[in-house]
Amino acid sequence: MRIIVLGGDGYLGWPTAMRFAARGHEVWAIDNYLRRQMALETCSEPLFPSPNLIDRAAIFHSVTGHTVRPVVGDCTDPATMFSLFAEVRPNVVVHYAEQPSAPYSMMGFDTARRTLRNNLEATFNTIWACLERAPDCHIIKLGTMGEYGTPNIDIEEGWLDVSHKGRKDRFLFPRAAGSLYHTTKVLDTDLLWFYVRLYRLRVTDLMQGPVYGISTSEADHDRRLMPNFHYDDIFGTVVNRFLVQAVAGIPLTVYGGGGQTRGYLNLNDTLQCIELAADNPPQPGELRIMNQFTETFSVNELAERVVEAGRSRGLKVAIRAVPNPRQEKEHHYYNPAHSALIDLGLQPNPMTTEVLGEMLDRVREHADRIVVDRILPRVSWNREVSA
Amino acid sequence: MRIIVLGGDGYLGWPTAMRFAARGHEVWAIDNYLRRQMALETCSEPLFPSPNLIDRAAIFHSVTGHTVRPVVGDCTDPATMFSLFAEVRPNVVVHYAEQPSAPYSMMGFDTARRTLRNNLEATFNTIWACLERAPDCHIIKLGTMGEYGTPNIDIEEGWLDVSHKGRKDRFLFPRAAGSLYHTTKVLDTDLLWFYVRLYRLRVTDLMQGPVYGISTSEADHDRRLMPNFHYDDIFGTVVNRFLVQAVAGIPLTVYGGGGQTRGYLNLNDTLQCIELAADNPPQPGELRIMNQFTETFSVNELAERVVEAGRSRGLKVAIRAVPNPRQEKEHHYYNPAHSALIDLGLQPNPMTTEVLGEMLDRVREHADRIVVDRILPRVSWNREVSA
Repeated sequence: MRIIVLGGDGYLGWPTAMRFAARGHEVWAIDNYLRRQMALETCSEPLFPSPNLIDRAAIFHSVTGHTVRPVVGDCTDPATMFSLFAEVRPNVVVHYAEQPSAPYSMMGFDTARRTLRNNLEATFNTIWACLERAPDCHIIKLGTMGEYGTPNIDIEEGWLDVSHKGRKDRFLFPRAAGSLYHTTKVLDTDLLWFYVRLYRLRVTDLMQGPVYGISTSEADHDRRLMPNFHYDDIFGTVVNRFLVQAVAGIPLTVYGGGGQTRGYLNLNDTLQCIELAADNPPQPGELRIMNQFTETFSVNELAERVVEAGRSRGLKVAIRAVPNPRQEKEHHYYNPAHSALIDLGLQPNPMTTEVLGEMLDRVREHADRIVVDRILPRVSWNREVSA
Repeated sequence: MRIIVLGGDGYLGWPTAMRFAARGHEVWAIDNYLRRQMALETCSEPLFPSPNLIDRAAIFHSVTGHTVRPVVGDCTDPATMFSLFAEVRPNVVVHYAEQPSAPYSMMGFDTARRTLRNNLEATFNTIWACLERAPDCHIIKLGTMGEYGTPNIDIEEGWLDVSHKGRKDRFLFPRAAGSLYHTTKVLDTDLLWFYVRLYRLRVTDLMQGPVYGISTSEADHDRRLMPNFHYDDIFGTVVNRFLVQAVAGIPLTVYGGGGQTRGYLNLNDTLQCIELAADNPPQPGELRIMNQFTETFSVNELAERVVEAGRSRGLKVAIRAVPNPRQEKEHHYYNPAHSALIDLGLQPNPMTTEVLGEMLDRVREHADRIVVDRILPRVSWNREVSA
């Protein structure tokens, strides 16, 4: 297959590009380094530096013989996207090209606007680059479980059958996200669904939970191929943040009551899911939505697992509740379906003590680089009204 | 009250600004003439020219003694919006500042992109100009009944109580619009709902049906104060188009089977609804959604009513079905609720033969200006795939 990875320099984009190349596909990876720029601007650099996309691709080729074709470009620029799609005529495009941080989107007007514009326009251009240059291309879009929020009913995989006053219809599952970042993914879904039903695009929209992990079979060839690893409050997800806190010898900071429950998955399972989606495309005119996670945990349960993993490595890890900087329910019902990817063949890698322990080992190699100041929450969802 | 009308040069914006000024409120009207520009670009000028916003405001003042303060500016420019809101500190903002044409949004990539960017960014800036400069301001946003599409269940006013597997929750009523223009209003609703629940804005989102009419008590003072009147396939709504066809002596062009049913209202009822919303603001943190129309008709029923009105004026009017340029259901269930505005005091002006007859009289005064070529559909929803 001919595959374009949008956001190919990212935490998920780079491992995805390597995986498809290692499987023998022709792979292009495009990125404008927006996440690197935002991390720099907010003092949120990752734990260790990564080579740029051109250099990563060269290293990958020299180490494995496989090819990822790097493209430095902006997916919000229509000319860039139209010419790339015309050149490649992709069978599959994997769309990760979005500002990925909820706290970043909540810092104020400028970061909110940048999030809205970047994410919507990248999606809009992806739709139109396919329509105009590769209409049979399968779009694999990364959404988020956060689109659904925490409703009081079971979360189905994308769709809901509704009975109302004796009549029935089927709708997109209602969405109510907890940050502007997550809300842009709701808007993405609305846009994709409109163009799918009108122009018969093929789209897979994956509602993904937070991902953890740093090791993949391709990244493990050479340390310079590792995905970027953020541990700060803005770009780091909770598992990575806890692991760094454990290594730094500071208590794991649980936000509020710690009952917030989400679906998580290992980076290797993300790669499996993307491959399964690509190998099983939907029909034209179908918006296929799958919930992409393997296990649900509360924040308190995650913290306990990291304590246990620390113990296995001789680290004594404490837990400390801090005021929740976000507006979210700390105790809520949560029962999301997630069988569609299992049915396609996903073999989950559970979050074992050993998996977390190996991540701790990796983090410890870079322990001297940890900047403690950037772990505690710096962005609040509770706005000081300035009137 | 201090009131800003965004899109104050438009078909609804200008009559709204005059109405509030005539009621003694302080009124600012901002517009960048985008609709005039798009109409010019697509050969869709209105039936008669209107003075520009500055001149209209001067004429209105000279004729009535009331004041509308005109501002020529772009609501997608944050600096313009922030400084306007800082200066005015509005109690109410009425947001009409959107590209209003479904066919325009379906012409191709460029018009779709312009629609998406203009509409979303105007809404986003409205939200943030309120948050930063007038946080207690009541936002009255014009949505559309088209956000809901034509579901197989009763359409409620904005919200739906759902029971699922023995549990219950309340959600935004599911939306599935039939054009990109209508879809941008779905995205607007999602954005507003996010910021309402997070930052406790006060928002009324009015799901309005197609509006008809040209006469209001303020506009009737002087012909130069009339709202603009589009009759073409791109900016004209179906009732206005039929009336012009009746006067031009060409058959009323019913799209497809003509069973498409929508909720309609008179321009004077739009003005009543906006006043009622402004006089009855929601609480902080409330997104109040009301369905704004007074009667439902199929396209075939509308055509019959125009035939009857023509007969009352001695015009012999024919009806002709043409291939439907849109993708929409031509026979469908349609039962939308619309009691919330009645409960606030709306007194509907029904679409009588006399009301349509008076509109025919106005159109006949300008019969020599009718350009027949621009009435038939020029934009198709059915895309030629270019691959």
